[in-house]
Amino acid sequence: MAEQLIGAIEAGGTKMVCAVGTADGKVLDRASYPTRTPEETLPDLVGYFKDKDIVALGLAAFGPVAVNPSDPRFGRILNTPKIAWQNYDFMGELKRALNVPVGIDTDVNGACLGEITFGAAHGLTDVIYITVGTGIGVGVCIGGQMLHGMLHPEAGHVAVQRAEGDTVPSTCHCHDSCFEGVAAGPAVQLRLGEDNNILSNDPAVLEQEADYLAQGLATYVLCYSPQRIILGGGVPDHTPELMPLVRKKTLEKLNGYLSTPELDNIDTYIVAPSLDGNQGVLGSIELGRRALEAAC
Amino acid sequence: MAEQLIGAIEAGGTKMVCAVGTADGKVLDRASYPTRTPEETLPDLVGYFKDKDIVALGLAAFGPVAVNPSDPRFGRILNTPKIAWQNYDFMGELKRALNVPVGIDTDVNGACLGEITFGAAHGLTDVIYITVGTGIGVGVCIGGQMLHGMLHPEAGHVAVQRAEGDTVPSTCHCHDSCFEGVAAGPAVQLRLGEDNNILSNDPAVLEQEADYLAQGLATYVLCYSPQRIILGGGVPDHTPELMPLVRKKTLEKLNGYLSTPELDNIDTYIVAPSLDGNQGVLGSIELGRRALEAAC
Repeated sequence: MAEQLIGAIEAGGTKMVCAVGTADGKVLDRASYPTRTPEETLPDLVGYFKDKDIVALGLAAFGPVAVNPSDPRFGRILNTPKIAWQNYDFMGELKRALNVPVGIDTDVNGACLGEITFGAAHGLTDVIYITVGTGIGVGVCIGGQMLHGMLHPEAGHVAVQRAEGDTVPSTCHCHDSCFEGVAAGPAVQLRLGEDNNILSNDPAVLEQEADYLAQGLATYVLCYSPQRIILGGGVPDHTPELMPLVRKKTLEKLNGYLSTPELDNIDTYIVAPSLDGNQGVLGSIELGRRALEAAC
Repeated sequence: MAEQLIGAIEAGGTKMVCAVGTADGKVLDRASYPTRTPEETLPDLVGYFKDKDIVALGLAAFGPVAVNPSDPRFGRILNTPKIAWQNYDFMGELKRALNVPVGIDTDVNGACLGEITFGAAHGLTDVIYITVGTGIGVGVCIGGQMLHGMLHPEAGHVAVQRAEGDTVPSTCHCHDSCFEGVAAGPAVQLRLGEDNNILSNDPAVLEQEADYLAQGLATYVLCYSPQRIILGGGVPDHTPELMPLVRKKTLEKLNGYLSTPELDNIDTYIVAPSLDGNQGVLGSIELGRRALEAAC
């Protein structure tokens, strides 16, 4: 019997990455389409998978999106700034068009699941995945299940304490001093100024960024008690100096309050992503596999 | 057949509450013993249950305590300031003495479980229980499972932003501006001063306390995405003016970032405990019931 093929969609705000792979994490094919309106985009996605003989599909979607099966809006994109996508039944339309079980989660939960199933957090049950790029997103796995609850975590918007004298405006339109508003890529760029776009070249901004990241991570350690933290996204990926600083400062923020073997080994506790940018696609394959299992 | 009896221990820093009840939440008997050394206290506990014919026991213990079954120290009290209890195999000793299945969790997870099983969060899967008293503790249920992870949440120690001009020292020995250090009972008392111990009598301190509580709650909403928040403990229990202020200010902190039916009904989203102080004992009974179920 040929191995069963599972489809994956990593649905982002600017592009949709489609892929086909197997449950053991082999990616056999992929393609990318620009994110347009649902009416324009759905045919691209369905067209890609139509003749690929997939038995299930996993969808890791931009949010806000209803990912809790007990939510009457389950599978729908919610009040996104992308007006055309508001209330769109993304999961339902894919299910109807492709006639296979579809699993859905947020983009960051998908990436977290990819790292747990195939990557840097393999075999762990309590893991968070943080991406610091144009925004800050946090995927959360608790006791082996992805965290949904009322909606899904929006932990990138927790408040942080501004450094004295840091009056650079927040880039978040809702919060003056939230983690994303002071520490995501656009906020870093504001601090660097027009003449520099390399964080490593500005030691003062680098130090401050590490401090904000450590504040966020300390909050997550206290709230989630994760067994491992994966810290990725454009900002840390392109700034190798950040990781050791963030590790040191996270411990400083906790200030000895918690004592665990994991924190004693901080270099293996806070780590970079491991899957060469494929964690979202691989997590989506695992979402598809789980949807198939649940349907059987 | 007579109904099976389940034992419960709510193990606090100053007293141990023992009780016997049934799986449907009837408490039939209870007694209380001072918390002394383990060698002095264990005979009290074992003596209480010895002739009570219990089929299982639930233990909701002060922390830090190893509550994750995958932890090699599972069931032990960890590095508590109570030196005599450090590394004490609390669950193991009770199991050996009473020869019944024993379920263990933190005191606040126990209380949260009590509210989920029998009280204000009945039937919900994603719930947090916050107690603001001599400290701030947070019990967390995610997807129907109590959150443990690396250790257990210590979410009472998340950082908050101090109000301008608030230089009252933190009562936390590790953190200058953590939630517990600025908002638990001892911090409130410092702000009220020696001549007043009623928060309701000082509108400025009341307003500031509500703001700190709202900061903590907003962080928890963003991190945990709970379906309901239960806010109890000595400070809110004795200050009826707090609850409406905290609800209003929590929404102000979130500032419209999240839009859910639950937040639209804030009066049923952030609520007081419902079980007349019995949530810990009732949660312990449920811990015992689950241990029995797992052993069968």
